[in-house]
Amino acid sequence: MSYIIGVDAGGSKIEVLALDLERHSANTLIIERSGNAMSAGEDKALYNIKEAVEKVSAPVEKTGSRCLGIYVGAAGAGSKEIRRKIREVLTGLALTDAVFVDSDYRIALAGAAGRPYGVVVIAGTGSVVYGVNEAGSEVILGGWGHLIGDEGSGYYIGRRAIREAVKFYEGRGGSKRIYEEVLAHFSVKDLTEIKPILYSGGFSKDIIAGLTVRVSKLCDEGERIARQILEEAGTALSELVSCALKRFVYISDVIVSGSILLKEKLVYDTFAFELKRTCPKVKIRRPRYRATAGALILLAGELGIELDSNLLPGAETL
Amino acid sequence: MSYIIGVDAGGSKIEVLALDLERHSANTLIIERSGNAMSAGEDKALYNIKEAVEKVSAPVEKTGSRCLGIYVGAAGAGSKEIRRKIREVLTGLALTDAVFVDSDYRIALAGAAGRPYGVVVIAGTGSVVYGVNEAGSEVILGGWGHLIGDEGSGYYIGRRAIREAVKFYEGRGGSKRIYEEVLAHFSVKDLTEIKPILYSGGFSKDIIAGLTVRVSKLCDEGERIARQILEEAGTALSELVSCALKRFVYISDVIVSGSILLKEKLVYDTFAFELKRTCPKVKIRRPRYRATAGALILLAGELGIELDSNLLPGAETL
Repeated sequence: MSYIIGVDAGGSKIEVLALDLERHSANTLIIERSGNAMSAGEDKALYNIKEAVEKVSAPVEKTGSRCLGIYVGAAGAGSKEIRRKIREVLTGLALTDAVFVDSDYRIALAGAAGRPYGVVVIAGTGSVVYGVNEAGSEVILGGWGHLIGDEGSGYYIGRRAIREAVKFYEGRGGSKRIYEEVLAHFSVKDLTEIKPILYSGGFSKDIIAGLTVRVSKLCDEGERIARQILEEAGTALSELVSCALKRFVYISDVIVSGSILLKEKLVYDTFAFELKRTCPKVKIRRPRYRATAGALILLAGELGIELDSNLLPGAETL
Repeated sequence: MSYIIGVDAGGSKIEVLALDLERHSANTLIIERSGNAMSAGEDKALYNIKEAVEKVSAPVEKTGSRCLGIYVGAAGAGSKEIRRKIREVLTGLALTDAVFVDSDYRIALAGAAGRPYGVVVIAGTGSVVYGVNEAGSEVILGGWGHLIGDEGSGYYIGRRAIREAVKFYEGRGGSKRIYEEVLAHFSVKDLTEIKPILYSGGFSKDIIAGLTVRVSKLCDEGERIARQILEEAGTALSELVSCALKRFVYISDVIVSGSILLKEKLVYDTFAFELKRTCPKVKIRRPRYRATAGALILLAGELGIELDSNLLPGAETL
C-alpha cells in the first residue's frame, strides 16, 4: 500500500493531507502554527512543517503503507534557499526522497481549479492573483504584502475603515459609525489608543483585516462609506484579474478564493460586474478543492501517478 | 551658576541641549540611538535617554553649575506610564527634581515658533500637524504612523513610488523610470527581491522614505508621475493644516518643518498654494529654533525663568 502527502504551509496554520492511494482514504491534520519562513523565522517554520508532516504520517506508516512523495506549498518561500531547506528537512524524515516545494499560491490554484492551470484570485487577509497556463508560463499580480500591496483584501478594507475613523476623529469628514465600530473592534475608548496596538511589537495584519465583518454589517445597514469601501475592494480585485487575463487570452475561467471574495457578497458582486465589463467572456467559478488537494494534484503530475480528482475525500473547500 | 537641559528624544537619535543661564553658553550632544519607547522598547529607550543626559551634564556639573530643570520631548511617549518612567529615570540622576516629559511635537512646535503656541506641520519620514493656542488647548492631526497615516511624508512619497514601480512591473501602467529608480534604491535586479527587505525582521520606514530624493530627481527631469506624487504629498499636507487652522481661527501663522517641506520645493509650493487657496490669510514661516530649544522655552515657562529667546546659541535650525 502507498500514500502521498500534500502540505499547505501558511502564515497562521499548516494543513497536511495524507492520501492512501489504494483505499482513497484521507488523513487531514491542521496545526495552528506558522509555516511562513519569512514572517515566523526560518527555524520555527521549518520545525513546524516537519512536525506536521511527521504527525500525519506516523499512523499511516504503522499500517505498513509507503510514502511515494510529499508536495509542499509554502507562504514566504520566495527564495530558492528556503525551498531547499524545507526540502532538506522533509527528506530528513526518511519517508521518501520525492519532496517538492513550491509557492502557496501554486497549490491553491491547482486545488481551486482541480488541475494545474488556470487563474485564481485569492482575497483573504492579503490578496494575490495567480495564473498558470497549459504551457506552464505563469503570471502573478499582487502579493506585495500590506506595506505596498494587498489591494482588495481584508487588510485593505480594514485599513480603509481605520482611515475613515481617523478622519472622523480629526473632524475632517469620515464616518461616525465606522469610527464607533473601530473603537469597539480594538476595545478602546479613545482612537489614539489603537497606535500602541498597531505599532508595538507583534503587529498582525489579521486584527486590521478583522474589521471587514463590521464594515460589512454597516454596509448592510445602509452606511454609505462602508458600502464605498467594499465596492472599492471589488473593483481593485477586478483590475488585477483583468490585467492577468489580458496575458492569457485563451484562459477565460477565473476561480475566486479567500474569505473576502467568497463571503462578502458586495465585494464579489462588484468584482464580478467590473470584471465582466472589461472581460465579457470571463467565467467566474468557486474553488473546487482545498490547497492541500492542489498539492496532491501537482505531486501526482510529478510522480506520473494517475489521480482521479473526483476521488479526493475530505479535500473539498470548507 | 546654573543651567537647564532640553532633550529631544526621537526614533533615530537623541539630541540634548544644556544651556548655561548666566553665560548663555550651550552644550549640544547628539547620540544616534533611539529614544522612542514604543518602537525601540522601553528599557532601551530609557537607558539611551538617561545616558545622553548624563553625558551632557557631566562636564557642566564639574564646573559647579547647578541644574535647575530638565524638559524632555519624547517620540512614542503617548502613555502617561512611559512619561512617568522617563521622569523617574532622570530624577534618579539626582541632577534636579524638576523633570518634565512631553510629546516630541510639543517641543518641536515651541522651538519652531520660538514660543509655546502656534501651529506646526512636520513632514519628514512621517508627518503630523500640531497646534496649541494661547489658552493651551491643542490640536493634533496625522501622526498615526505608516500603517494608517503619514500623509504627505517621505514614507508616503516612497510608498507611492514603489506602487508605481509595481504597476509597471505587473504591466498595468506605472512608470518605467520610477521602477528603475526603485530597483537602484534597493540594489536589486528583480522587483520581487524588495519583499524580504520590507518584511523580514527590522523593517524601517526610513528606507522607503529615502526614495523621495529619487522621485524628486525624476520630477526635475520632467517625469509626470513623479511630479504627481510630490504634488499629492503637498496637497495632503495642506488638507491637514487647513483643518487644524479651522479650529484655531485666531492663529494664522503656520510653521513648516521636516525635510520634505523644507527641502522638496514642489511639495512646499503645492502645499503653500493649496493652503492659501483654502485659508487666504495664512502666513507660512520657516522654523526658528530646534526642538531642543523648544524644550528649554517650555522649561523656562514651567520654572518661571525669563528666557531671552534671542539668546539661544547653537539652537538655530540646521
